[in-house]
Amino acid sequence: MEVELVESVLKSNDRIAREIRERLEREGVFAVNLISSPGAGKTTLLEATLPSLQRQGVRCAVIEGDLFTTLDGERIGRTGTPVVQLNTRGGCHLDASMVAAALEKLDLKAVDILWIENVGNLVCPAQYDLGEQLTVVLLSVVEGNDKPLKYPPAFLRAGACVVTKTDLLPYSGLDLERLKQDVERIHPGMPFIPVSARTGEGMEAWLAFLERERSRWQGRGGPAAARMTAG
Amino acid sequence: MEVELVESVLKSNDRIAREIRERLEREGVFAVNLISSPGAGKTTLLEATLPSLQRQGVRCAVIEGDLFTTLDGERIGRTGTPVVQLNTRGGCHLDASMVAAALEKLDLKAVDILWIENVGNLVCPAQYDLGEQLTVVLLSVVEGNDKPLKYPPAFLRAGACVVTKTDLLPYSGLDLERLKQDVERIHPGMPFIPVSARTGEGMEAWLAFLERERSRWQGRGGPAAARMTAG
Repeated sequence: MEVELVESVLKSNDRIAREIRERLEREGVFAVNLISSPGAGKTTLLEATLPSLQRQGVRCAVIEGDLFTTLDGERIGRTGTPVVQLNTRGGCHLDASMVAAALEKLDLKAVDILWIENVGNLVCPAQYDLGEQLTVVLLSVVEGNDKPLKYPPAFLRAGACVVTKTDLLPYSGLDLERLKQDVERIHPGMPFIPVSARTGEGMEAWLAFLERERSRWQGRGGPAAARMTAG
Repeated sequence: MEVELVESVLKSNDRIAREIRERLEREGVFAVNLISSPGAGKTTLLEATLPSLQRQGVRCAVIEGDLFTTLDGERIGRTGTPVVQLNTRGGCHLDASMVAAALEKLDLKAVDILWIENVGNLVCPAQYDLGEQLTVVLLSVVEGNDKPLKYPPAFLRAGACVVTKTDLLPYSGLDLERLKQDVERIHPGMPFIPVSARTGEGMEAWLAFLERERSRWQGRGGPAAARMTAG
């Protein structure tokens, strides 16, 4: 019976996620859902990414998911990016209805990329579609080599794996090549992007990947086609 | 309605956890539930702890919780400690019924300390009593200063906070004193034990804490009193 309820919760989540996805397509907003363990560096990656996008004229907004506190929202706010803080009050993931509520507080016409920073949790967020176009799983080099094999759902769901904190590689004992092979085993062909937001290493590749994904989405007729359908 | 079901699941979990606790008291087994984010170093701490306890004549057993794989169970097995692997197949935490099932596979008469390594997740395991006598939350120095304030339930539930990977402190940017103050704010008086399983730093303090807690439990009449009641 518990399983049935979980299924119906997921079904209802998926319905709302579909509506969000359609709405974002209509508005021409590319949404990226960031998932990872606590402390893998989602907020830090955003702090390094947002100013670069700003300089390129790409308008961003951020939905910040946290159990409690507005600490991350405040950090994002300092980059000058519009941010909506969602507190799950103990809940272990964002769901589509929370994202739908957050969208009401944003001027989507003024947004090109909507970032959704999920609750720090490598397990539960993998089950919940938020209506995003791209899910990115972050994994820091200090979490250990075994994480992709031990937490496959997040790596299966994601469209890219960003390996963070590569400046700590010399001290971490991590074998980056083996990690890449393990990720490849779980999700063949998924882009694997090592970065250090601290030193800037790999940030260019990350930004280029992002631009490529967004163009591909636009090229698939993303916003335009959606607008035509809507019109 | 979802909330009601969650409450009833938690109630049934708590009932099973109580039964486990009573049984472990009767058997004189001190159980420790380890919770943390993925990659904070639960298995590594155990790998460093078990041989020392073995040398002191303290007999251990381990219940290993993972979504998938037996990687951690195999690592523990190499220490010569009896281990039962629990795979949640995607589930984000262990629950009491899983632990009850694992107990059937252990000879509790030959166990002084039962370690329960929970699924790597700083959120969900905090809600589930497993019948343990002591919960320990691990936090690695590379997860960032803000984790206690952002994930308070785990720090409220725990009876001790072990800060792992202190050998990485020089590279982490973490302010250990501030972390200690934040933990103290959330859970006043909770022991705060920095360790590096890699260099051995802090391991003595950790083992001394453990012995103190176990003696206190025994002194409270833990196993003896329970046996008398049972008799």
